Amino acid sequence: MNIGLLGFGTIGTGVYELINLNKGRFSKNLEEQAVITKILDRDPNKKVDPSDTAAKIVTNADDIIEDPDIKIVVALLGGMDFEYGLIKRALQNKKHVVTANKAVISEYFEELLTIAAENGVILRYEASVGGGIPIIESLKEELKINRVNEVKGILNGTTNFILSKMTEEGADFDDTLKLAQSIGFAEADPTADIEGYDVSRKLSILSSLAYGGIVKDEDVRKRGLADVRAVDIEMAGDFGYIIKYLGHSILKEKDQVYTTVEPVLFKEASIMSNVNSEFNIVSIVGDIIGELQFYGKGAGKDATANAVVGDVLYILNCIKDDNYPKPTRFAKQLDKCGVSAFEGRYYLRVDIPDHEAFAYVMDVVSEVCDEKSVIVSDDRVFFMTDVMAADVFDAMADKIKERCACFYARIYE
Amino acid sequence: MNIGLLGFGTIGTGVYELINLNKGRFSKNLEEQAVITKILDRDPNKKVDPSDTAAKIVTNADDIIEDPDIKIVVALLGGMDFEYGLIKRALQNKKHVVTANKAVISEYFEELLTIAAENGVILRYEASVGGGIPIIESLKEELKINRVNEVKGILNGTTNFILSKMTEEGADFDDTLKLAQSIGFAEADPTADIEGYDVSRKLSILSSLAYGGIVKDEDVRKRGLADVRAVDIEMAGDFGYIIKYLGHSILKEKDQVYTTVEPVLFKEASIMSNVNSEFNIVSIVGDIIGELQFYGKGAGKDATANAVVGDVLYILNCIKDDNYPKPTRFAKQLDKCGVSAFEGRYYLRVDIPDHEAFAYVMDVVSEVCDEKSVIVSDDRVFFMTDVMAADVFDAMADKIKERCACFYARIYE
Repeated sequence: MNIGLLGFGTIGTGVYELINLNKGRFSKNLEEQAVITKILDRDPNKKVDPSDTAAKIVTNADDIIEDPDIKIVVALLGGMDFEYGLIKRALQNKKHVVTANKAVISEYFEELLTIAAENGVILRYEASVGGGIPIIESLKEELKINRVNEVKGILNGTTNFILSKMTEEGADFDDTLKLAQSIGFAEADPTADIEGYDVSRKLSILSSLAYGGIVKDEDVRKRGLADVRAVDIEMAGDFGYIIKYLGHSILKEKDQVYTTVEPVLFKEASIMSNVNSEFNIVSIVGDIIGELQFYGKGAGKDATANAVVGDVLYILNCIKDDNYPKPTRFAKQLDKCGVSAFEGRYYLRVDIPDHEAFAYVMDVVSEVCDEKSVIVSDDRVFFMTDVMAADVFDAMADKIKERCACFYARIYE
Repeated sequence: MNIGLLGFGTIGTGVYELINLNKGRFSKNLEEQAVITKILDRDPNKKVDPSDTAAKIVTNADDIIEDPDIKIVVALLGGMDFEYGLIKRALQNKKHVVTANKAVISEYFEELLTIAAENGVILRYEASVGGGIPIIESLKEELKINRVNEVKGILNGTTNFILSKMTEEGADFDDTLKLAQSIGFAEADPTADIEGYDVSRKLSILSSLAYGGIVKDEDVRKRGLADVRAVDIEMAGDFGYIIKYLGHSILKEKDQVYTTVEPVLFKEASIMSNVNSEFNIVSIVGDIIGELQFYGKGAGKDATANAVVGDVLYILNCIKDDNYPKPTRFAKQLDKCGVSAFEGRYYLRVDIPDHEAFAYVMDVVSEVCDEKSVIVSDDRVFFMTDVMAADVFDAMADKIKERCACFYARIYE
């Protein structure tokens, strides 16, 4: 059984080592030979392991997508349009596909699953959410018995690394982002991570599966993390909280779905507060099982490769047994309600440039919440608000931002 | 497809509601009818739901075990010999079996799996460990790629409820145990829970699967929890720790396995410290995936029934597809090394009845560790020891117990 690998970067190398170099126990779980025969890489001079006589480097994806001997395509390129096109063509050519590409899956979820079903092949994407955490299959299992009505998680290693470092060391955001970039924990352009696009893609995949209808990435309300400062971490700590960057969705009555990616304050004495650095966690709530949480490495070569190779093994077993799973369908039409139903107290820090700004801010805030938890310190004001709806708070924050820099985060209770 | 239910207690009722009363989404995942037709209960007058025309109560287990129309037996009686006999006979009669009985599975693990394999039927036991947490199947999945070398977990709801309550409210052990008994969180005879037998059974099941060889319950070193007092919780808190009751096993070189059930101090800022009351958590460490943790309700009607019904669904799908999983085998001969290799610092509290006892204790302790972290308070002495091997510490504690009451716990670092 031949496998084609699209991409020979970090994760691609991990997958290659697990399958062809047998670093894991891959071959022990196979009754027939399964090997990677072709690897797509831009560099024709890139080398496979000298001991490996099966694999060769190709620079044209067609050499894999059109190879009749390749039955499984593992797509690990990243990006959007190019990989989407390759995955689609591979499925149309009746090849099973495994991918870690959350952008492609969240954007073309229904279309790709439909093409897979029409062509009698399997599309798997366990590594697209939570890296090595076996959340996709676990969620599907629980859905056989449960109605899942809530999904939340720390789903981005870069921002969690930044927040963990800031919390540990009292460092500020910009310095910590630079550190993360220098050690490969953040990309040169960190927008996708710190503005919430990465989390919202993962949240949209999980929410679509959980609620049985498509939850589009673009409908997820995203509040970025870039405004968080050392003083926010410190102030949160004084109140007994840790700041985390959370993806969170809730299914309410009448198939209404609320989704948000935002900074959230968790009590220090909580599980979420103790998920640090590159680790991720996903919580799901079912009507029968209650809450389940899954914790593990959300990124990294071996953990992600583990998830990818798990998907390959699954497909190999389906082929061997000639027994394919029922296709996932998104039968339900969900009503996309954004973030408005997330009620909570809020932490808000406003930087005050002058006296007039101070009066302005106090005026704006007093319109919507009482002032009992206000701390005025040098050129900043800190608020812990009453419980209020997210959209009311947002409107207030927008007014403040007209004149002042600020950072705010929902308090999880 | 007919199902026979052995036991109509709390979990049995939960399973009945999920399957026959369709409280969950059970029937939506079935292409053919599957119903519970017979339920074993001591009381012949016990009633099934009036709307249910399929199920009837039987008082003789043979009515289920010998019924040729029953293809799946769900065994939820508890206890040991009687249920073991029924499970064995059901398998020999070529019926698939689902059970939540950790005592039977841990004691007869290899024998029952062998009988199932010989008779071409499936034995499932997801609910035997961690209640609703999908740990058995998740562990098996990871083992397809990983060598798992460590398993640990908070696996007992009763002791975790007691410790959580003591920590929250400063209450003492005896009062909290009585409270737990009064609200059904602890049995009239709490020995299995507070002396570690329940945890060691679960640990033996997980460890046998993880390491691929039988780890017998009786080889697990058990330190009970009954000596913990409010003052221990308080003193641990002063040092920044929370006391938890942990099952822990490690696979070392040369297939040596170390296993222990004991009170352990975790840093307040840790995930384990924030697993409370009836919630359980299981951590596994694989050589490729790294650490994974699974959190959920470790007991309770619906969560446990969810796990049982998940197993029933799995078997129904295997029957439908005529495609059975490879039998689990325990090929490896493991060397049972008990607890000796667990090194750690220890927290130790000794009650001092008189001056001579004080001198005796200080003498015994000074033989094996330095005295820098000693706190003398009224009629008690508290120690935080250096790093030492568990067996060295145990020998010391045994000497102390000859004259004084004490409590001790390993410090997890």
